[in-house]
Amino acid sequence: MLFDSKLVEKKIIEFIREIVKNSSSEGIVLGLSGGIDSALAAALCSKAIDPEKVNAVFFYESEAGKFEDNTDFKDASEIVKKTGIVFTTIDITPIMNGLSSTLKTVWMSETKKSEKNQNIFEQSQISLGNIKARIRMAILYNIANQTGSLVCGTKNKSEYLTGYFTKYGDGAVDFEPIADLYKTEVWELSKHLEIPKNIINKKPTAGFSPGQTDEDDLGMSYEKLDTILKKLENKKINEETNEETNKANKANEETLTEKEIEILKKIKSAEHKRKMPSICKIN
Amino acid sequence: MLFDSKLVEKKIIEFIREIVKNSSSEGIVLGLSGGIDSALAAALCSKAIDPEKVNAVFFYESEAGKFEDNTDFKDASEIVKKTGIVFTTIDITPIMNGLSSTLKTVWMSETKKSEKNQNIFEQSQISLGNIKARIRMAILYNIANQTGSLVCGTKNKSEYLTGYFTKYGDGAVDFEPIADLYKTEVWELSKHLEIPKNIINKKPTAGFSPGQTDEDDLGMSYEKLDTILKKLENKKINEETNEETNKANKANEETLTEKEIEILKKIKSAEHKRKMPSICKIN
Repeated sequence: MLFDSKLVEKKIIEFIREIVKNSSSEGIVLGLSGGIDSALAAALCSKAIDPEKVNAVFFYESEAGKFEDNTDFKDASEIVKKTGIVFTTIDITPIMNGLSSTLKTVWMSETKKSEKNQNIFEQSQISLGNIKARIRMAILYNIANQTGSLVCGTKNKSEYLTGYFTKYGDGAVDFEPIADLYKTEVWELSKHLEIPKNIINKKPTAGFSPGQTDEDDLGMSYEKLDTILKKLENKKINEETNEETNKANKANEETLTEKEIEILKKIKSAEHKRKMPSICKIN
Repeated sequence: MLFDSKLVEKKIIEFIREIVKNSSSEGIVLGLSGGIDSALAAALCSKAIDPEKVNAVFFYESEAGKFEDNTDFKDASEIVKKTGIVFTTIDITPIMNGLSSTLKTVWMSETKKSEKNQNIFEQSQISLGNIKARIRMAILYNIANQTGSLVCGTKNKSEYLTGYFTKYGDGAVDFEPIADLYKTEVWELSKHLEIPKNIINKKPTAGFSPGQTDEDDLGMSYEKLDTILKKLENKKINEETNEETNKANKANEETLTEKEIEILKKIKSAEHKRKMPSICKIN
């Protein structure tokens, strides 16, 4: 199926307008990382409502060096200039220091409780990445609360399906304008909207650790991933299974390659990130 | 309808066991505030799985005085002793200080940007309460990630329906054992499970500010609220409306008292807290 950038742009802009209107909100807040997804989301928001009511927040850690020299900061600034949206830069160093100090005490005391906990003290990069994503969310919502705004998500469909986001972190927003676009479609639409080339050509990264790239994490290129995701979607193999479709899925799964089965497993194990928490129903 | 505590206890315990088993989790983490909802949730978890795999976390702020003298801390400790679960106390003062310092800078710069923002600088208690709830969530998930556990929610149905919780704060959990129990049913079940009387009789509070009580916020007692919620539920006036039911709702709404309409509005405006964020559908 051909991707009609013009039509998709129109659909998303109408969606954003509708949601802001229906919630009687004063504006939109979103995190602007310097990457392509948030650049595209910001550009779409700036076309949907008055750009001066779109507040893009760039988070940085001052201890990691001068952020003004940072490529991501420069790219984020370029989008701000191009779209006329409001720009806020936030140094999360004081919070991260407070958090480290609190968690250090917690894990020291946990270590004393059981031997099994001793290894846990070495915090993994992913876990730290998750907590940062949640802190960023808490700050975005604080700004949104104070200004009567909605928080805009910047997830794409490839991330959404594979669960490549933090539950209640970057996953925690009020609306998702581009979550039904595969990463390869995000590239398409970004070209159409004339997002600067340096942003489009940048290697996608979740920024969890220096040099980390999404494609390393995924073990394949986004082109390859999206081809698999589309194939699984066409075969209607997804998480919304029931007794009847299970049988058809089984038959379909037999025709899948190893890589495809691996992605299918990812989709299924990320199901809880795409649903509200289960409630124990009584009545 | 009579509330059958024994049957409800059994249902919830089975639900918890099932969810822990299906997710292959190592245990459960939950916030224990000293209030009745988290006490009940903790007691149910301790019956569903090995109590030593249930980690109850008590959050406090050291700058607010010695927490050991605090009634809530004493009550939380009592539940821990009674159930045999693991207890962790966490001082969030360093994080809150880091957060204040960061947000102060943000709001100073926002104030400069526009006159409209000048009033915003005076942070409201609710907004501070919301951010605390989100920080607590981030810490609970950090512990859960490190120990391979699930985060257990402690919301009751009266809070769930009226939206009396923080989106992506205390609302952000992996499962909700008591979210289908009205507050008055929480009291019933707590008596049946022999939760200490001082906890059952304590005035419910979200702890947003000293002396604040839920019933002041709601403008009525929980008994009154639950009577209204049950009536609305019986009339099937709820947020899941469509063209067909809208007409029936309209007719029903005409028979409602002012207080009932007020609650109905609360339920409807909290709808977004009970749903995943809207995604702009493309295909």
